[in-house]
Amino acid sequence: MRRGFHTSEYLGRVARAQAEMARAGLGALLLTTEADLRYFSGFLTRFWESPSRPWFLVLPVTGAPIAVIPSIGAALMAKTWIRDIRTWAAPDPVDDGVSLLAETLREVGGPIGVPDGPESHLRMPLADFERVRLASGLDWRGDAGIVAALRSVKSEAEIEKIAFACDIAGRAFDRVGEISAPGIPLSRVFREFQRLLLEEGADWVPYLAGGAGPEGYSDVISPASDVRLAAGDVLMLDTGAVFDGYFCDYDRNFAIARSTARQRDAQMRLFDATLAGEAAARAGSRASDVWRAMATIVGADEDAGRLGHGLGMQLTEGLSLTSRDHTMLRPGMVITLEPGVSVSTDTIMVHEENIVITEGAPRRLSRFSEKPLPVL
Amino acid sequence: MRRGFHTSEYLGRVARAQAEMARAGLGALLLTTEADLRYFSGFLTRFWESPSRPWFLVLPVTGAPIAVIPSIGAALMAKTWIRDIRTWAAPDPVDDGVSLLAETLREVGGPIGVPDGPESHLRMPLADFERVRLASGLDWRGDAGIVAALRSVKSEAEIEKIAFACDIAGRAFDRVGEISAPGIPLSRVFREFQRLLLEEGADWVPYLAGGAGPEGYSDVISPASDVRLAAGDVLMLDTGAVFDGYFCDYDRNFAIARSTARQRDAQMRLFDATLAGEAAARAGSRASDVWRAMATIVGADEDAGRLGHGLGMQLTEGLSLTSRDHTMLRPGMVITLEPGVSVSTDTIMVHEENIVITEGAPRRLSRFSEKPLPVL
Repeated sequence: MRRGFHTSEYLGRVARAQAEMARAGLGALLLTTEADLRYFSGFLTRFWESPSRPWFLVLPVTGAPIAVIPSIGAALMAKTWIRDIRTWAAPDPVDDGVSLLAETLREVGGPIGVPDGPESHLRMPLADFERVRLASGLDWRGDAGIVAALRSVKSEAEIEKIAFACDIAGRAFDRVGEISAPGIPLSRVFREFQRLLLEEGADWVPYLAGGAGPEGYSDVISPASDVRLAAGDVLMLDTGAVFDGYFCDYDRNFAIARSTARQRDAQMRLFDATLAGEAAARAGSRASDVWRAMATIVGADEDAGRLGHGLGMQLTEGLSLTSRDHTMLRPGMVITLEPGVSVSTDTIMVHEENIVITEGAPRRLSRFSEKPLPVL
Repeated sequence: MRRGFHTSEYLGRVARAQAEMARAGLGALLLTTEADLRYFSGFLTRFWESPSRPWFLVLPVTGAPIAVIPSIGAALMAKTWIRDIRTWAAPDPVDDGVSLLAETLREVGGPIGVPDGPESHLRMPLADFERVRLASGLDWRGDAGIVAALRSVKSEAEIEKIAFACDIAGRAFDRVGEISAPGIPLSRVFREFQRLLLEEGADWVPYLAGGAGPEGYSDVISPASDVRLAAGDVLMLDTGAVFDGYFCDYDRNFAIARSTARQRDAQMRLFDATLAGEAAARAGSRASDVWRAMATIVGADEDAGRLGHGLGMQLTEGLSLTSRDHTMLRPGMVITLEPGVSVSTDTIMVHEENIVITEGAPRRLSRFSEKPLPVL
């Protein structure tokens, strides 16, 4: 799998954004988050883990994007297709890019659109944002959802990267028997599963969740405890593994030493719900339609959590499969189907697969589970 | 190493914050980021990787913190010391916690302080932030740097966690010979080094950087390429590995098959600079004093990048060792000493260690390198 994209991929993204910006009357977009910057520039680094420096990409309504970034990133940015790279010595406690950014924005012209809708945030200090707004003398507004909408529909090249990440996780899931047995602490299973993902080709593993217990698990966001696996437990592992900046996000259940009828029934219901979701996931349908197809099978009410979501450069992005999200599905949208069922009063089981919406039946990106709950 | 903290740790943090809030005339703090929420609540999860849901902690000037969070987090938050937990079914495209948060803030009273200084950001959609401000009817301002200042001085319990993370990385660095040899692609070394960190006890590895080349490396933020190590290269690995939510952050250089005089000279200069930084790192000194002690040895000018930074719940936090940062060092501050030298026109070598400021000489948290550049 080739790393990166051809420049044509970025030119297409920019052209589509600029068409929408012209329609919305925007002079430029100001982008500040890892995913938004990378989407238009290809700038890929784990250095965002450090909160100390802001990074900016200015996308004018015509012409090429301008990177306004700390000088420590200049060499790496110069390896992307971006040619206009302006830097300052960050962190600067007095003027941390504020003047340079304001000057760049004045040159480009407003109104300036900033992503401000669902799932967005502004990755820079609020006080500096106010300073930039004032110093620019321009009109500021939201981005009218332009960036999120563009990012929600994936190109073929993006889909291949997500599929590749899914394959990596599939091979790691095939090896869970190597690391799980009665007596092994869940924290060790988590650690070892990350090792398997790396061995199978993941660049890194930003996300891992899971749980274990005789009747499912209490939630799917807790870190692993040192509690030991026991015969009769069901173990769930849910991973967001990354290859070249693109995520997979799916999970698997395993029974430890033996499975119970209750666990197997729950797993069958989850399979059925996943297939119903897959059948409903057609271009032109709504996110809420897919939710409903699964919700009727698992008995989820309208206020229950979402049963899936978009996926791509971030672990979750774009739409949510809930009763309230009526986003229309379009070819190229990559989504997860993630039904959950109650197993007892305070435990659940979940199952998750990844698909891409096409003109016809969805394409499976994860190798769908087809057998009953495997016993390790 | 015990996970989590005694409730007394959180009570102390809250009391110190509230004393500062009273001085600053704040009625409450609104916290939205992973680190700030965790600092006061102990809420630890990798679920923040998903940008889909905002999370809020309201810290009133008197009384206990209030969590205003998506219902998916209620079970995990209930395991912390926080008792007032208010939830909504997120993501909600119409009202994603806005009304619930505004109601909570009105109950608590303003003015509301929001972290807005260096390294901070607001982790919620800007449009929703404006809605909350309006709906609250309260006065809003910055937090006067209260949260960042508190977090920059670590308790003994926090320091032990960072020391534990440093020990894990130390054992992994001792094993780099197992994974590095001429002909091995750098991308595989990165993957395998993450595996070693996990085997040695890291919960996860949010950050890994590095580089390799005959005369150092071009920068320290690029992802690993598939270029193969060659005899005579110097390999650098820099990790932010996490145990129980606390980071180490240091690096090591290794010569592949043989070292050159130039590499050894650079490494000796880096050692000398690190020791000079350590000697200057005394309570009452300034960040800029420590920078100067190292800068004179490595020949860094005033506009060069920083030569170290604070460390803790985030890979980098608090002060920067630059000519411009005059933050006073205080006992309990954990910092990195990270000098860099030019090896050729466009390559560098770096070295990094972790220490904690005390009343006397700093305590070393990473086991300082003492020998010349090791040859693998």
